[in-house]
Amino acid sequence: MEVAKILHMNGGIGDTSYAKNSKLQQKVILMTKPILEEAISALYRSLSPETICIAELGCSSGPNTLLVVTQLISAIREECKSNGQQQSPEFQIYLNDLPGNDFNTIFRSLPEFHEDLRRQNMGDDGIFDPNCFVAGVAGSFYNRLFPSKSLHFVHSSYSLHWLSKVPVGIENNKGNIHVASTSPLDVIEAYCEQYERDFVNFLKLRSIELVKGGRMVLTVMGRKNEDRFSKASCFLLEPMVRALNGLIAEGSIEEEKVVAFNTPIYCPSPAEVKFIIEKEGSFTIDVLNTSEIHMDSSDEYNVTQCMRAFIEPLLVSHFGDELNMDQVFHKCREIFVSGIAKEKTTCTNVVVSLTKTN
Amino acid sequence: MEVAKILHMNGGIGDTSYAKNSKLQQKVILMTKPILEEAISALYRSLSPETICIAELGCSSGPNTLLVVTQLISAIREECKSNGQQQSPEFQIYLNDLPGNDFNTIFRSLPEFHEDLRRQNMGDDGIFDPNCFVAGVAGSFYNRLFPSKSLHFVHSSYSLHWLSKVPVGIENNKGNIHVASTSPLDVIEAYCEQYERDFVNFLKLRSIELVKGGRMVLTVMGRKNEDRFSKASCFLLEPMVRALNGLIAEGSIEEEKVVAFNTPIYCPSPAEVKFIIEKEGSFTIDVLNTSEIHMDSSDEYNVTQCMRAFIEPLLVSHFGDELNMDQVFHKCREIFVSGIAKEKTTCTNVVVSLTKTN
Repeated sequence: MEVAKILHMNGGIGDTSYAKNSKLQQKVILMTKPILEEAISALYRSLSPETICIAELGCSSGPNTLLVVTQLISAIREECKSNGQQQSPEFQIYLNDLPGNDFNTIFRSLPEFHEDLRRQNMGDDGIFDPNCFVAGVAGSFYNRLFPSKSLHFVHSSYSLHWLSKVPVGIENNKGNIHVASTSPLDVIEAYCEQYERDFVNFLKLRSIELVKGGRMVLTVMGRKNEDRFSKASCFLLEPMVRALNGLIAEGSIEEEKVVAFNTPIYCPSPAEVKFIIEKEGSFTIDVLNTSEIHMDSSDEYNVTQCMRAFIEPLLVSHFGDELNMDQVFHKCREIFVSGIAKEKTTCTNVVVSLTKTN
Repeated sequence: MEVAKILHMNGGIGDTSYAKNSKLQQKVILMTKPILEEAISALYRSLSPETICIAELGCSSGPNTLLVVTQLISAIREECKSNGQQQSPEFQIYLNDLPGNDFNTIFRSLPEFHEDLRRQNMGDDGIFDPNCFVAGVAGSFYNRLFPSKSLHFVHSSYSLHWLSKVPVGIENNKGNIHVASTSPLDVIEAYCEQYERDFVNFLKLRSIELVKGGRMVLTVMGRKNEDRFSKASCFLLEPMVRALNGLIAEGSIEEEKVVAFNTPIYCPSPAEVKFIIEKEGSFTIDVLNTSEIHMDSSDEYNVTQCMRAFIEPLLVSHFGDELNMDQVFHKCREIFVSGIAKEKTTCTNVVVSLTKTN
């Protein structure tokens, strides 16, 4: 599976679009706000660039795409205010996602974004009116995306648990489509090694692109602890596993085809994240923590739709017409409501704030 | 008419798309190649930036979008070669067009572009392998698009004859949809003044965004001389004028509606271009010339389709369902083949190469 060619959130603004089904991701962004604000303020205090260049990696298309940008600009406004500085720096914002992402919809939403930004930032004094320039950058963050030393700040939320590819040698992950508590040990290890390779590569690339003293805040769907067999946040995929197994039992789909389908997602623990960052060596860790989102059954519709928004393109690519998407997600929803939603379901996020040292 | 909200070339890659119907614009780009190469080489000799930041304004979507970028990178390769320099600078390319432009199609073509670029530039020595980063920027070039002093080179071909709006006070341009030889004098003046306001504004904005010593090469559809009543390049719109007048005569469309339709296009003379640049004062003129493209009747299909690719969105916006687009362009084609194509038809381009002085 060539993830960079296939993966994208569902485009447009329809019922199954990512734009309409990304409340979970929004909650996560709102939870990490204090860490983000502290990181961008510290950056501005130490470097004070005339133009702050910010990259939002895995921006998708929808209400979350520019949410962090708005938060970052507000934080800089407060920083300037507290210095008695009335002149705003300029902002160059790079919105990145894979080439399949719906950038047209983002670009058409920009006039409204600029209007909101102006209204929110002008305040009582009517002075802080930042020039904010937005550019779209299509490509995998496992490749170079920006010129050397061109960025001050990198943010990525709920993207870096996506691997560059499904690990090789996991044919025996039968009955699962990800690292589940019932996966064989060698499958877990293959996923873990792929995650390490990808994350090391990501850190190396970003350290070339960031200026010295530049900062990153990264949030991923992760695990609370080191128990590799624990229910990680990937439990969100459970209804899909059960739905697919149900279709095999019904004879609607071949077992072989399902066995060959694995999602390129890994949910790391904080210790794994820490280990890789320290081993790679370009960044110091300012903050590393976990947070949790509890989902109750009232969220059920959104959880299934949320999953559909990100996994449908992968399913379409693998199964083609063999799978009726409406049917599959209807099954998922039933499974979620009747079972999983009644358990205590918690999504764990690992958040890390970094400064580039060398 | 809010040009920035409405105007865009026909998207996608279908028969009526700009991507399939932009050979005229391609010919123009190929004709200006020597001027472009001289300008970018001179820039590199004088500033030698580690990352060359280039903006392509009005990039559209299709084979022309990245054609100039390829030419510019090749010119830098030659410049490096002639210095015995094996290390390539990095390139940050900004592709700009209005928010209605089909950026998704551009982004999906980037992997192929990068592959071609690598193949073309590696050469026998296998050494020159430039990192080239492409970003999309959606917005009108009559507004700020980039941070201050962030660009080294700006290019725009066949875009700056588009005005920011249809001039006001041209209700008496009856029977025409642009500045034609039969337009009243006050209509011509209104168009001319709008062009001056827009071009001055464009120069002021770009002079903020370019570094000192930065360069621009601009090509517009223009006139050969100062005769304001001469058949300018806008004659390409003649078949449309006749087709619309035919539809009025047939009673298929109301005359009032056609009278209220004017295109936001102005074809300046070299003297007008020179006058405005010198008056604005931020740039010196390195080259200013005109070139001509002769179109024979074998080009007829392409000329009508070419016109459709750029004018259809404006017609749809103004006339809505009242106008059957296939019917209109079928009429245009007939008119072109039976009349205009038999005359000697020549399209004049005004090309100007500039350096930012202050």
